[in-house]
Amino acid sequence: MVIRASTADLYMDYRKQLRKIADIKYAAAVLQWDQETYLPELGAQLRGEQIGTLTEVAHEKFTSKEMGKLLNTLSEREDLTLRQKKNVLLSLEDYNKQKKFSAEFVRVLSEATSEAFHSWLHARQHNDFRIFIPALSKVVALKKEEAEIHGYNHHPYNALMNEYEKGATTAMVDDVFSVIRAPLSAMLSELRRKPEPGDAFLKQHFNKSRQWEWSLFMARQLGFNFNAGRQDISEHPFTTNFNSNDVRITTRIDENDFKNMTWSTIHEVGHALYEQGLPLEEYGLPLGEYASLSIHESQSRLWENCVARSFEFWQFYLPKLCELFPEQLNDVNLEAFVAAINKVAPSLIRTEADELTYHFHVIIRYELEKNLISGEIQVNDIPAVWNEQYRTLLDVHVPDDVNGCLQDVHWSHGSFGYFPTYSLGSFYAAQLWEQAAAELPDMYQLMAGEGSTNCLLNWLRQKVHAHGRMFTSEELCMNITGKPLDSGIFINYLRKRLEKIYS
Amino acid sequence: MVIRASTADLYMDYRKQLRKIADIKYAAAVLQWDQETYLPELGAQLRGEQIGTLTEVAHEKFTSKEMGKLLNTLSEREDLTLRQKKNVLLSLEDYNKQKKFSAEFVRVLSEATSEAFHSWLHARQHNDFRIFIPALSKVVALKKEEAEIHGYNHHPYNALMNEYEKGATTAMVDDVFSVIRAPLSAMLSELRRKPEPGDAFLKQHFNKSRQWEWSLFMARQLGFNFNAGRQDISEHPFTTNFNSNDVRITTRIDENDFKNMTWSTIHEVGHALYEQGLPLEEYGLPLGEYASLSIHESQSRLWENCVARSFEFWQFYLPKLCELFPEQLNDVNLEAFVAAINKVAPSLIRTEADELTYHFHVIIRYELEKNLISGEIQVNDIPAVWNEQYRTLLDVHVPDDVNGCLQDVHWSHGSFGYFPTYSLGSFYAAQLWEQAAAELPDMYQLMAGEGSTNCLLNWLRQKVHAHGRMFTSEELCMNITGKPLDSGIFINYLRKRLEKIYS
Repeated sequence: MVIRASTADLYMDYRKQLRKIADIKYAAAVLQWDQETYLPELGAQLRGEQIGTLTEVAHEKFTSKEMGKLLNTLSEREDLTLRQKKNVLLSLEDYNKQKKFSAEFVRVLSEATSEAFHSWLHARQHNDFRIFIPALSKVVALKKEEAEIHGYNHHPYNALMNEYEKGATTAMVDDVFSVIRAPLSAMLSELRRKPEPGDAFLKQHFNKSRQWEWSLFMARQLGFNFNAGRQDISEHPFTTNFNSNDVRITTRIDENDFKNMTWSTIHEVGHALYEQGLPLEEYGLPLGEYASLSIHESQSRLWENCVARSFEFWQFYLPKLCELFPEQLNDVNLEAFVAAINKVAPSLIRTEADELTYHFHVIIRYELEKNLISGEIQVNDIPAVWNEQYRTLLDVHVPDDVNGCLQDVHWSHGSFGYFPTYSLGSFYAAQLWEQAAAELPDMYQLMAGEGSTNCLLNWLRQKVHAHGRMFTSEELCMNITGKPLDSGIFINYLRKRLEKIYS
Repeated sequence: MVIRASTADLYMDYRKQLRKIADIKYAAAVLQWDQETYLPELGAQLRGEQIGTLTEVAHEKFTSKEMGKLLNTLSEREDLTLRQKKNVLLSLEDYNKQKKFSAEFVRVLSEATSEAFHSWLHARQHNDFRIFIPALSKVVALKKEEAEIHGYNHHPYNALMNEYEKGATTAMVDDVFSVIRAPLSAMLSELRRKPEPGDAFLKQHFNKSRQWEWSLFMARQLGFNFNAGRQDISEHPFTTNFNSNDVRITTRIDENDFKNMTWSTIHEVGHALYEQGLPLEEYGLPLGEYASLSIHESQSRLWENCVARSFEFWQFYLPKLCELFPEQLNDVNLEAFVAAINKVAPSLIRTEADELTYHFHVIIRYELEKNLISGEIQVNDIPAVWNEQYRTLLDVHVPDDVNGCLQDVHWSHGSFGYFPTYSLGSFYAAQLWEQAAAELPDMYQLMAGEGSTNCLLNWLRQKVHAHGRMFTSEELCMNITGKPLDSGIFINYLRKRLEKIYS
């Protein structure tokens, strides 16, 4: 029957089925969002089971024999439009990957990560990584199994990275990191010989509700549509979406550190603008999804850093900020403020790191994950390896687990292979930013004069967001900038920005 | 294969399947909760589809042939425990009812009610019932179809009521209402000849955040466990639960009417205490569910009225309330306060009505729903019929739709047949309250002296909550009070309470 049906009918059926699967997956995302924002303590007990069931049902539906038949039949039809064809081929690719996993495995992994998330929260409360070990060990064992089921060349970590960044390999990432490591180290040594910009004024007391107000203002100004999203508070800031008309970000507020919330909010806004810009009519289909995690991170890092640590941005916004916090900031001039928010200093917390040392944080996690997945180190070893690496690469002493290996939520989610995309994303961001500046001659002026970043957002909407998963990271980069990813552009961008500040 | 399996294995499989279905249904409930509390405006567009899919999937799983086979096989096994047997028989009963409905019908109804909910919100914003007509008409048509699919004797409304109150018929409800109507009318006429208690002090300005604080305090004092639940704000207060460890209530705050929030919160707390008291180990199975809607309402009405409009309750709590609102309440003595909160006066809004006139509000809705479902009136006719009935039964003029036929959320949810359970619940409440007072000699004293209602809650936990769906409303009533439902007990309770206040 499938074989005889018209292509239009088959495609309609495909679209309908995929939307249903998306409904279930996004329902799980709502439950996860709720879990990290509003879930009462005891509710955690059954929430893992509930998310596990949804994950299992979505997986069963997507990997059913009928789905396989439908996708294979459609993929051979000649009368699909280019976009339809792309959707079908990507779905078939996903199908062939997913069908290797039993519903049981998917469920067990989902439940293990729910459990690990609560264990991570608990370990953080007690500032003790040991509490997290049993739950994390279960997750790591499952991720190793996952790598085996996927299959891989050379290194099992490749299989996991591939989930976030199609085609990424340890060889390629090792290469990227080895290229940037020397110039970053050299820059760091050079800067450390110069006088440090003062940033004590950022560590004053900044009232919680005013910070919250500021974060909403920032989000709105940057183009986040609050009719199609919201912001809440969570332990670890994140962005999630249930469709491009419902995109949610979270933040956290430290009353004694102004930097903490502001750039975290802007980072998440960057992710959210991408999600809000995805085509709603492709809801549930590949072209309604983001291209890759590194492109997702390129959006968050571009807004967080290229935009929101620039001189021009604060030329407009510092006076606004001073209105909200006159006591703390009235004496601070623009140069001093921009220097403080760009100050380079090895530190403990990745999400609060400057643009230079940030990548050492990523490298540490990347190396650690690789060795964990290959079995060279065990979960028990994490704190020692972590602390030793922070000493070696960043010359900082890790005083406790909360400021060390308990800081990131990712492992509790089972997101092994995710971290490298933060660095790749930063490099893509610099390359996109350079291109945008070249194509948008008024960009800096509008930002400085009116605080407007609309032209940049529109450019990104058109160049990146609207395409969904149509292109891979590399293809997008090539289409937009005419070149493959070049981390040298990032190094130049950074050197130029820091030279100005440290001169 | 099913036939040969051991009863223990079959029961385990049954339990596992039912828990999965519950996971999906409660996920839909999380999406609904989110829809009424935090959903961004544009998110509404796809939320209906998402809830629709979950509803459809849960329905498909529950009404599958395999489930039917499993339930039928299990129901014939002799070696189930009494509780297991009850679970299986109730599930089989549900199955036989549900399998009459196609997944398509269930989905369409779910999507229609999501749409109707947003249309209702919209109509309320514009204070115009006409906006609600198209969406509501669709729901009413589907509910008529539902009645036909269920099948019924005498009146299609019986089929719908039966969903909330097993075995309820228009004949039985007509009878109950005809019994109470005369004494209530007589009491009302009598009271209206007496001087009205003053309640102007309740209509002063009561700061929003203090009211919120007060509602949280009240909920905690009454035994609501915030580790297993939470409170939020919504357009129409409701209680929902995702398991007995995650029970959520909502409230709304009117700064110029103290009564609005307080008794609404306590009403929802009454529902929530029931849900928090259901046996968690029976999650997903009938014995983990509430007995019936009238028993559910008996819990909310008992706490809202029997407890929280009593002299003894406020003997302890009025001084606490005065601490929070000294300006508004310091001059008010206990007698005046209790008289004000029990003042009988025909009014427009059901949820704010006194204990006497409340039932006229219910009767109006009941009669209207009956005629709507039988086709004697149409959706267009609702405002005229509503307004005319309020004039006839309550002698009040309905100035607009928000204060009239747009006040309740129920119809937008498709909850036709629900309203009668509010009155039945009130009558059960009075009967339970009388029984509790007889069995708990210290009850009043503890309430007045220490503000403690623990003994009452424990009594209800043991007599009502712990049993889940083990007994029907009538059986529970008989087991606990030794008598069938007797609305005369309610009349006596009310007469006694009002006599004291109006004397």
